[in-house]
Amino acid sequence: MMKLKPAEPDFVEMVKEKIGGNYFSIHIGINIHRIDVGEIEATIDLQGHHLQQMGYVHGGVTATFADVVSGFAAFTLAKRGQGIVTADLRVSYLNPGIGTKLYGKGWVIKAGSRMHFCEAEIWTIDENGKRTDVAKSSSTMVVV
Amino acid sequence: MMKLKPAEPDFVEMVKEKIGGNYFSIHIGINIHRIDVGEIEATIDLQGHHLQQMGYVHGGVTATFADVVSGFAAFTLAKRGQGIVTADLRVSYLNPGIGTKLYGKGWVIKAGSRMHFCEAEIWTIDENGKRTDVAKSSSTMVVV
Amino acid sequence: MMKLKPAEPDFVEMVKEKIGGNYFSIHIGINIHRIDVGEIEATIDLQGHHLQQMGYVHGGVTATFADVVSGFAAFTLAKRGQGIVTADLRVSYLNPGIGTKLYGKGWVIKAGSRMHFCEAEIWTIDENGKRTDVAKSSSTMVVV
Amino acid sequence: MMKLKPAEPDFVEMVKEKIGGNYFSIHIGINIHRIDVGEIEATIDLQGHHLQQMGYVHGGVTATFADVVSGFAAFTLAKRGQGIVTADLRVSYLNPGIGTKLYGKGWVIKAGSRMHFCEAEIWTIDENGKRTDVAKSSSTMVVV
Repeated sequence: MMKLKPAEPDFVEMVKEKIGGNYFSIHIGINIHRIDVGEIEATIDLQGHHLQQMGYVHGGVTATFADVVSGFAAFTLAKRGQGIVTADLRVSYLNPGIGTKLYGKGWVIKAGSRMHFCEAEIWTIDENGKRTDVAKSSSTMVVV
Repeated sequence: MMKLKPAEPDFVEMVKEKIGGNYFSIHIGINIHRIDVGEIEATIDLQGHHLQQMGYVHGGVTATFADVVSGFAAFTLAKRGQGIVTADLRVSYLNPGIGTKLYGKGWVIKAGSRMHFCEAEIWTIDENGKRTDVAKSSSTMVVV
Repeated sequence: MMKLKPAEPDFVEMVKEKIGGNYFSIHIGINIHRIDVGEIEATIDLQGHHLQQMGYVHGGVTATFADVVSGFAAFTLAKRGQGIVTADLRVSYLNPGIGTKLYGKGWVIKAGSRMHFCEAEIWTIDENGKRTDVAKSSSTMVVV
Repeated sequence: MMKLKPAEPDFVEMVKEKIGGNYFSIHIGINIHRIDVGEIEATIDLQGHHLQQMGYVHGGVTATFADVVSGFAAFTLAKRGQGIVTADLRVSYLNPGIGTKLYGKGWVIKAGSRMHFCEAEIWTIDENGKRTDVAKSSSTMVVV
């Protein structure tokens, strides 16, 4: 694991401010709980509109969640005025998402001056505390 | 291009019925306009909640759209009682999505008895009729 | 399809020169037959060492072939002194590769100043002239 | 991390036997050093023919290595008579591969009856013992 350094000391505030303008992220109900250098954790309280026809979390919710936690993980490394856009996102759907809450974590696996490689995990926890991995993603994020 | 054959003569009705239960797909406003064997076309009327902080279509909307048109393209080949789940999805973000309507097309590039490989294109058309490619995706869909 | 323009008029010679130093590409026997703006076609004469345990073309040969035709397709757009490196490569294995010759085509689907998105197809042709798609790939290529 | 169980008690011998017929894997010099349930470690002694024009390990070598360690990691879970084929392989190229030896590790992140999801890491270690990550991959492997 490489040691990551934020470009700005107030990167936590920068992320919080950016989230306020991320309308789709708010629309689907992503709540960010932890903002660390190169790492973001969040949850979604699952509702009926997050599901597909079999009653599982829709793959689009999972992909969006992976994209958001990865993109913001990359954004913790940004200089003021820089933005992060996704060049490429890949999601492996490991298990059906079943439950009332979806957990997500995104992190930077390799930081660069022009692009960052990120990964994300999406999972559920049942009433007995058992974690089920719903998806794993990898992405290429570009600094703009 | 391989010649694809539907397993059921009423595959168009099967798709329409399935869409009714795809809550997240409805929630983000995906309208399917064309249902052919192994091929689906759809649009999204873009609203404020579909955007990210720069005013472009959110990558999660694009990924969801790609997943939906690809998954239903695969579903046109399903036997009654079979379902389609996404095993993995990759989205390449080619250009920012700017405009009032998002167009999407998904198709099967290789059909199999247990899995289908699909691709999708997402694009916009400006007021002069100029098309801009927003994303290209490839996916592995599993028959369940 | 976007209209692509080469940065240098002698891009064909630039590609040919570059190939001479691509030792692994030579080692596995990739022969480039066509060099166009943003597009490359090549073949590999298949030998025993290209195969895996079931007698099919090894997935690594296919991935290497996809990477090479895509990377050189991107390189046709390079300015003198620039290089192209692969940021990420995805290969979907559509059908087993069986035969005496592997065909490959790589092309740029979206060119940029800092990165190019490419795709590639790998296929075989049997003694009756029937084409079988072996793989489809998409990749993100970075200008360095 | 899910607990994995081999289907056959002699899975180590099954892997060793299978490797003997993997001609391309032998051709590029992959040496498997560790065979555990759902996990494989291997090395390649780098030679001139493994390189591309800048003197770095060719992306095709890295992709092949990732495919082989992932595929054999999946194969440790196979029943006698079953084979593993790659449906989809995605490689993120994190840093240039420079050195005399390439290290690779592949593992199963989710096992299933019909498909396995795998990941792989490829890295180098310099003369001071410093590890550099060259690539990370994810793949979908199908049981046949």
